[in-house]
Amino acid sequence: MPFSFELIKKDPCTGARLGKMVTPHGPIDTPAFMPVGTQGTVKSMRPEDIEKCGAQIILGNTYHLYLRPGHETVRKLGGLHTFMNWPGPILTDSGGFQVYSLSALRKIGPDGVMFQSHIDGSRHFLNPQKAIEIQEALGSDIMMCLDECTPYPATLQQTRDSMALSVKWAKQCKEARTTPDQALFGIIQGGTYMDLRRQALEQTVPIGFDGYALGGVSVGEPKEIMYAITDEITPLLPSDKPRYLMGVGMPADIVYAVSCGIDMFDCVIPTRSARHGLLFTNSEKIVIKNARWREDEHPLDETCDCYTCKNYSRGYLRHLYVAGEILAMILNTIHNIRHYMLLMDKIRTAISENRFLEFKKDFFNKMR
Amino acid sequence: MPFSFELIKKDPCTGARLGKMVTPHGPIDTPAFMPVGTQGTVKSMRPEDIEKCGAQIILGNTYHLYLRPGHETVRKLGGLHTFMNWPGPILTDSGGFQVYSLSALRKIGPDGVMFQSHIDGSRHFLNPQKAIEIQEALGSDIMMCLDECTPYPATLQQTRDSMALSVKWAKQCKEARTTPDQALFGIIQGGTYMDLRRQALEQTVPIGFDGYALGGVSVGEPKEIMYAITDEITPLLPSDKPRYLMGVGMPADIVYAVSCGIDMFDCVIPTRSARHGLLFTNSEKIVIKNARWREDEHPLDETCDCYTCKNYSRGYLRHLYVAGEILAMILNTIHNIRHYMLLMDKIRTAISENRFLEFKKDFFNKMR
Repeated sequence: MPFSFELIKKDPCTGARLGKMVTPHGPIDTPAFMPVGTQGTVKSMRPEDIEKCGAQIILGNTYHLYLRPGHETVRKLGGLHTFMNWPGPILTDSGGFQVYSLSALRKIGPDGVMFQSHIDGSRHFLNPQKAIEIQEALGSDIMMCLDECTPYPATLQQTRDSMALSVKWAKQCKEARTTPDQALFGIIQGGTYMDLRRQALEQTVPIGFDGYALGGVSVGEPKEIMYAITDEITPLLPSDKPRYLMGVGMPADIVYAVSCGIDMFDCVIPTRSARHGLLFTNSEKIVIKNARWREDEHPLDETCDCYTCKNYSRGYLRHLYVAGEILAMILNTIHNIRHYMLLMDKIRTAISENRFLEFKKDFFNKMR
Repeated sequence: MPFSFELIKKDPCTGARLGKMVTPHGPIDTPAFMPVGTQGTVKSMRPEDIEKCGAQIILGNTYHLYLRPGHETVRKLGGLHTFMNWPGPILTDSGGFQVYSLSALRKIGPDGVMFQSHIDGSRHFLNPQKAIEIQEALGSDIMMCLDECTPYPATLQQTRDSMALSVKWAKQCKEARTTPDQALFGIIQGGTYMDLRRQALEQTVPIGFDGYALGGVSVGEPKEIMYAITDEITPLLPSDKPRYLMGVGMPADIVYAVSCGIDMFDCVIPTRSARHGLLFTNSEKIVIKNARWREDEHPLDETCDCYTCKNYSRGYLRHLYVAGEILAMILNTIHNIRHYMLLMDKIRTAISENRFLEFKKDFFNKMR
C-alpha cells in the first residue's frame, strides 16, 4: 500500500487543516504529533503504552540507529517495526540533524558530511545516498531527505549556501530512493531569511516529494521568528501534501503552527520533560519534586484519562521521582504523551467543528 | 478477613509442602516467591506487570518507606496498597535488616537501635514498638518482628546475645500489635549455631505468631551452612504455620529449601539481575550485553510465556541494554520475575503430583 494523504477539511478562518495520511503500517489523522523514539524505543515506553496514549505514528532517529545497533542489524532483525515491536507507522529523520548537533569533528562538504560518533569516536560519512540507504534498511513509512540544518544565527551568505546544498541533496535523495512504499519528504531550509525560504520552497517542491517539512526552525531563534516563518511559508507549500514542522514543540507552538496549516509535529519535550519530572496539565505545569505534592492524593490532572491519572496520586508520583524510581519515568511519560495526544484530539475536533479559531483564542487566553 | 494458612499437602519423600495463605488482600499459593518492592514499587514494574507475571504477594521495605516518603505520608495516602496501586497481599519486613546493612552509625542497645539515614544522615530510633507502628501505618498483610540480624561470622557469645535480643523484641512486637487483620511473623535467629537456632525456635514459637521465618541466612555464610540450617531447623517449625526463608535466593536455593519444608521466599536477585542484564532461562544464564546476541532473533527463552519473550528478540534486548534504555530494565525484569514464578509453578505442580523429589533431582542434575 503506497503512501497517501487526503485533505479532509480546511478551517474557514485560519490555515488549519484536517487530514489523513495512509501508510503501509496504518493511517494517521492530522494534525498529528509524533513521539520521539530515538534509539528504537520511545524512552521508558512499551509500544502498547504509546498506542494506548493515542499516538498513531512515532519518529525514529536514523543517526542513532545507524550507529547503534546499525541499520544492517535492524534489517536482519526484520526492520525497525519488527525490531522494536511497533506495528504502526514510523517516520525516520535523515540523521543530519544529530550529525550537526551531537557528533564530534563533523566536516560538511558538497558531497556529504564526515563525522565522528558521539559514542565511540568512530568515523563515518553520511551523504544523501547513504541517508536513504539507511532509512530503507530501517523500513520506515516516511523517510526524510538529508539536509543541512542551518544553525542560528547564520549570515545571509551562509544560509544561502546551506540552503542550496539542501536543495541539491534533496534531488540526490529522490534519485537514490528505491522503495516506492516508503514515502519521502523534502525539507525547506533557508534559516531566518524569508526570501531564502521562498527560494528553497520554489526549488524543492518541483523535485516532487510525498510531503514537505520546514526544517531549521526551533534551533535557537526567537519564538516570534519561528512563528513568522511558519506563518509565511506554510501556506506556500502544496496544499495536497502533508506539511511537517520539524522539532516543534511546546503545546502553544503546536496550536499556533496548526493555525498556519501545519499537519505534523515531533518533539522530545513531552518525553524528556516527563523524565525530568515536568508534567503538563490543563491548568498548570507541575514540577513533581516540589514538596507541596508530598501528601496530595489527587491525580496529576483531573481532566486526564491516562493510566497514570487513573491510578496514581501526585503524592505517589512525587515519591517515585524523589526516590529516583524507574516507574516515575514510566508514569510521567505516559501522562505527558497522553496530554499531547489529547491536545491533538482537541485540535482536530475543533477544526472539524469549525471552531478552531475560537479554540486557539481560548488556548492563548488561558496561558495569560 | 483475618490471616489464615492451610496446609494442603505434604510431599511423601521430602519436607516439601503445598499450602495456601489467605490475607485481607487475597490468597497466596505456597511455596511462594515474593518480588521485592523496596520503595513502594518493584523497580521498573507496574502493579499489572507483577500480577501478569503471576506474583501473588510482594515485599515492601519498612526501612525505606519509613525514611521516604514516611509511613505517616503513606497512611494519609491510603496505606501502601492504595499508595502504590497494588491490590494484592504485601509483606513488610521490620526495617531491621536495612538498618544493619544500609544506615550509618547504627548503635544497637537492649531497647532498640539508633541509626542515621543513608539518604540524609538524619537520626532515627527503631524499636519493636516503632517497627510495628510503622508496619501498621503501611497496612501490610503480613508484618515481621523486629530482630537483630546476626552477622556472619559471629562468635558463639555474640550470636547468643543477639538471639536473646531477637527473642525479647519478638515478645515486645507481639504485645505492641494492635491490628488483628495484619498477620505477624516471628523470626528465628541463632546464626550458624544449631543449638542456638533450636533455642531461638523453642523460645519464639511459644510467643505465638501467624508464621515463622528463618532470619540471618544468606548473609555471607557458605551455602552449605545455609542449606544445613534450613535442613535442620525448618522441620522443627510448627507445621500448621507458614515458614519463610528470608532473603533467599537463587533458583537452586529455593528448590532446596522447598524440599526442607519452606513455604515463602523473597529476594532481589531476579529484579536486580535483570537491571544488570543478567537473565535467567531454563537452559543458561544470559548476559545480554554480550556481542553474541547482537543479531539473535530468538526470544530470551523459547519455553517462557512472558511479555518479553513473546514480543522481543535477544538482539533487540541487547540493543536496549547497551544503549542504556529504560525499556531494557522493564523487559528484563518482566522476564526474570516470570522465570521465578514459572519455577514456583513447577514446584507446586510437582508437589501436588507427588513427584517433587524427581523434580528436585532433575533440577540439580541440569545444573551440573
